[in-house]
Amino acid sequence: MTDEVTWIALKKRLETVIAITVTPFDTAGKIDEQGFTRLIQRLLDGGVKAITINGNTSEFYSLTADEWRQLVRLAADQASGRAVVIVGIGYDLSTATEMGRFAQGAGASGLMVQQPVHPYQSPAGWLEYHSAIAKALPEMAILPYLRMPLSGRWIAELADRCPNLIAVKYAVADPLRFTETVREVGADRLSWICGLAEPWAPFFWLGGARGFTSGLVNLKPQISLDLLMQLRQGGVEEVLRIWHQVQPLEQLRAADGSMRNVSVVKEALAQLGLCSPAVRPPISRVSEAEAARIGEILGSWGLVETRSQRQRQGPENAVARPQLQ
Amino acid sequence: MTDEVTWIALKKRLETVIAITVTPFDTAGKIDEQGFTRLIQRLLDGGVKAITINGNTSEFYSLTADEWRQLVRLAADQASGRAVVIVGIGYDLSTATEMGRFAQGAGASGLMVQQPVHPYQSPAGWLEYHSAIAKALPEMAILPYLRMPLSGRWIAELADRCPNLIAVKYAVADPLRFTETVREVGADRLSWICGLAEPWAPFFWLGGARGFTSGLVNLKPQISLDLLMQLRQGGVEEVLRIWHQVQPLEQLRAADGSMRNVSVVKEALAQLGLCSPAVRPPISRVSEAEAARIGEILGSWGLVETRSQRQRQGPENAVARPQLQ
Repeated sequence: MTDEVTWIALKKRLETVIAITVTPFDTAGKIDEQGFTRLIQRLLDGGVKAITINGNTSEFYSLTADEWRQLVRLAADQASGRAVVIVGIGYDLSTATEMGRFAQGAGASGLMVQQPVHPYQSPAGWLEYHSAIAKALPEMAILPYLRMPLSGRWIAELADRCPNLIAVKYAVADPLRFTETVREVGADRLSWICGLAEPWAPFFWLGGARGFTSGLVNLKPQISLDLLMQLRQGGVEEVLRIWHQVQPLEQLRAADGSMRNVSVVKEALAQLGLCSPAVRPPISRVSEAEAARIGEILGSWGLVETRSQRQRQGPENAVARPQLQ
Repeated sequence: MTDEVTWIALKKRLETVIAITVTPFDTAGKIDEQGFTRLIQRLLDGGVKAITINGNTSEFYSLTADEWRQLVRLAADQASGRAVVIVGIGYDLSTATEMGRFAQGAGASGLMVQQPVHPYQSPAGWLEYHSAIAKALPEMAILPYLRMPLSGRWIAELADRCPNLIAVKYAVADPLRFTETVREVGADRLSWICGLAEPWAPFFWLGGARGFTSGLVNLKPQISLDLLMQLRQGGVEEVLRIWHQVQPLEQLRAADGSMRNVSVVKEALAQLGLCSPAVRPPISRVSEAEAARIGEILGSWGLVETRSQRQRQGPENAVARPQLQ
């Protein structure tokens, strides 16, 4: 059994920027292994200390069981020892538990349990689902992913039952409810992770969040890490400056029911020459106009030349477009 | 290739009550095969002409891949020739297509494609997802399950691309939008199925629905078939009478975000001695008070004695409680 000291240490290590990796595809539509390891390397080299494999930004629900395992193996091999490796698991209870067992065998430390997708579910059923997973895998850290409102008493009950429940990824866009939930369950009892990335991180921080997940961190780790540092230091003005810096991209991701959440990040990575912009249905790629806007934003972050700079220089100096379309 | 005449005939056969089966579990938590075939037999004997296996009422998202196949095999063996057998499929594109291929091999006629669960998805991605499945399985009838609003033009585009798109299971609780969508796509072009069961069927009928799905039909097929007949005949008063008859049970199912949608039906089946009330997390069983209320409703339908009748007769005459708890 894992002892309490280990859980406390791991809990502390989760109070950071948790990168959610993207899953690059090759021209045949398969996993681009080289691209994937390149992206993870970039995160590690950039100073990221926790990564989640096979989350929603990774197109979790578009992966076959084999691909899911392929990605866990690759990521755990590469990142273990340098960062906390968390793996997204889900589906029916038996499949979720099997996934957790595989992740443990591969060397991961934690499991992010996807909000169950069942259209009919109860809070008591939520508790049973997570409790069954946590009890079946007592040596794995469990992070439930909350995308729908849930009373804090169910979270507290889960924590009572399962010492390996050490964090919650909270992704309901309601900072008041979040703040009340943290108080109800206990601010120090769990690591409270803002599951709504940079735009919400400062607001959730106020309520007790001490870490946040990020897809944007794949593009420029330093921005997210700077935000974390400023949040820790209480640098309100700097927090706001970074917030306004990321908003143009995050607004593109959030628009129209977040339908471009992943495709904006992949298009940006493609413009940086890091992987293909390809996404799998039911996600679709961004439009030409949106791609141009993404180029402008990356330019404003000093990552690529802006379209107008490229035009001034002529096409021969244009930034390399993605190889894999 | 399946010819147009076959599609027209099948389209017509879907304009009926489409029963969504429940999945009974035994004391060990496994599929109760005997219970399952007993429930299907009851539907067939009751005059039901179309059934969907592995839909949401069947706890689709709680089934392992093996269990999913086990249920398809059982149902197709038993019901083929007596009813149109439709199978719920979903998850990533590759898994969904594999599921469809298995259902075809087992003898099913149609595939109900679960609304993709991806938190980020676009209408264009919805089209690609369904189109890929329909094209990979050109001899299977395709019924997309719409649980989120979608402009009719995407449905029309899918119908243009895929002759095997013959029906839509529409489950957005907005009869105005539904009516507009039917007009936009074409009332005769597809079979429009109300995916919100008896409570919404009369309202959707007005807008062009010619069939509806039902979980309640598992309890007493005659009620749902009577409603269908009255809708066809335009018997407004009788429609209203049946509507008020089913509402007490359907309100219990719909309350609190539909968290008891399945457990109410299973509790009722248990009170009828047909299968266990067991559900899998994240669904939980109904309370004692709700179970008593369900008993009263079944009594009012002439299915079991009401609690007060039982009390008058003494416990020795009590209706048999479920065997499998």
